[in-house]
Amino acid sequence: MGIITIERNVLEKNDQVAQRNRDMLRAHGVFTCNLLSSPGAGKTLLLERILESIGAKRSIAVIEGDVQTTLDAERLERFGIPAVQIITRGGCHLDAPLVENALRQIDLTALDLLCIENVGNLVCPSGYDLGEDMKIVIASTTEGDDKPLKYPAAFRNASVLIINKTDLLPHVPCDMAALRGNALSVNPSLKVFETSAFTGAGIPELCGWLMEQSPRRE
Amino acid sequence: MGIITIERNVLEKNDQVAQRNRDMLRAHGVFTCNLLSSPGAGKTLLLERILESIGAKRSIAVIEGDVQTTLDAERLERFGIPAVQIITRGGCHLDAPLVENALRQIDLTALDLLCIENVGNLVCPSGYDLGEDMKIVIASTTEGDDKPLKYPAAFRNASVLIINKTDLLPHVPCDMAALRGNALSVNPSLKVFETSAFTGAGIPELCGWLMEQSPRRE
Repeated sequence: MGIITIERNVLEKNDQVAQRNRDMLRAHGVFTCNLLSSPGAGKTLLLERILESIGAKRSIAVIEGDVQTTLDAERLERFGIPAVQIITRGGCHLDAPLVENALRQIDLTALDLLCIENVGNLVCPSGYDLGEDMKIVIASTTEGDDKPLKYPAAFRNASVLIINKTDLLPHVPCDMAALRGNALSVNPSLKVFETSAFTGAGIPELCGWLMEQSPRRE
Repeated sequence: MGIITIERNVLEKNDQVAQRNRDMLRAHGVFTCNLLSSPGAGKTLLLERILESIGAKRSIAVIEGDVQTTLDAERLERFGIPAVQIITRGGCHLDAPLVENALRQIDLTALDLLCIENVGNLVCPSGYDLGEDMKIVIASTTEGDDKPLKYPAAFRNASVLIINKTDLLPHVPCDMAALRGNALSVNPSLKVFETSAFTGAGIPELCGWLMEQSPRRE
């Protein structure tokens, strides 16, 4: 019982800070997405493709969550954008206070789009509001088509599903119709994109939609 | 401070039950491995290959950990082995008390090998002793070669690394030497196998080693 109480307090505290983050980001007209996936589903390569594609058309910043290393922020910093690395040192998810600290290092006044790359983990991050406008879950074709059923919370709490690594479909036992159907059975309102961050397929559609969500301020 | 104390108590309680599990399994001469990986790295298909390969030579049981669904246990039950499904309902890892409950449903007297397939999560399960003889971490080539650096605990706490999905190497940006090197930099004593559960490559070597670890009782 004691643990349950503390867990609730932790989540209440998290939600308060998340709301503060959201109020601040919205006051600055920033569209914020929280990217969730398993390790290695292609979150960072997708962000690289987004920066290549619309980095000149939108002012973008990235917050990188990792258990260890600054490898991902280093990959993104070469685009000349603000990239703040949060190292959780074993922690399995980002929380709102970590993001609040990271936001202090970013000038929000000219920002259009903030992408938060969560720790690679399809379970724990889905329960934590960071103050984002929406969660985006990324599923790789290499993970198979049953993952929405086996890890439903990430798919239930997301607004958008990106099915990545479509270039590998000829080589992996993944039925795209089943993957889509399983995801929509968990969350019928999911908007679905199909991409290969490796070949660039589907990136224009994804980026077109992202630009609609994050209009440039006058 | 309160949370830290409770976390320590939870781990102490876990470790006591884990030791009880280990004592019981060893008393019955059962070799037990705890399989860790990201979602979709191929744990269940590897188990299917192991059962096909040595199911007639060793008495094997499986404990399946999943956030939701009994899909994995159903896949394994067709081999006619004891397959106990633990559904964590959102929980991000197995713990020793969950395994203790599952063990009550398995006849250990004739068992040689117990495989525990943990929840697909490269972060949280690595901190929990279930009473296993060793942890085996599975990395998929599709996840890229940097994962041992970014998720070091799973690789540090494992005794064996299985690099799976080697059949996809021609199609994915994964440098096998770098992946091996990164893993060994985190844990120089890792024993490494390379497999493709999809094609069967490397399965004989893995199964030969598993049979050495789990000699049939007279």
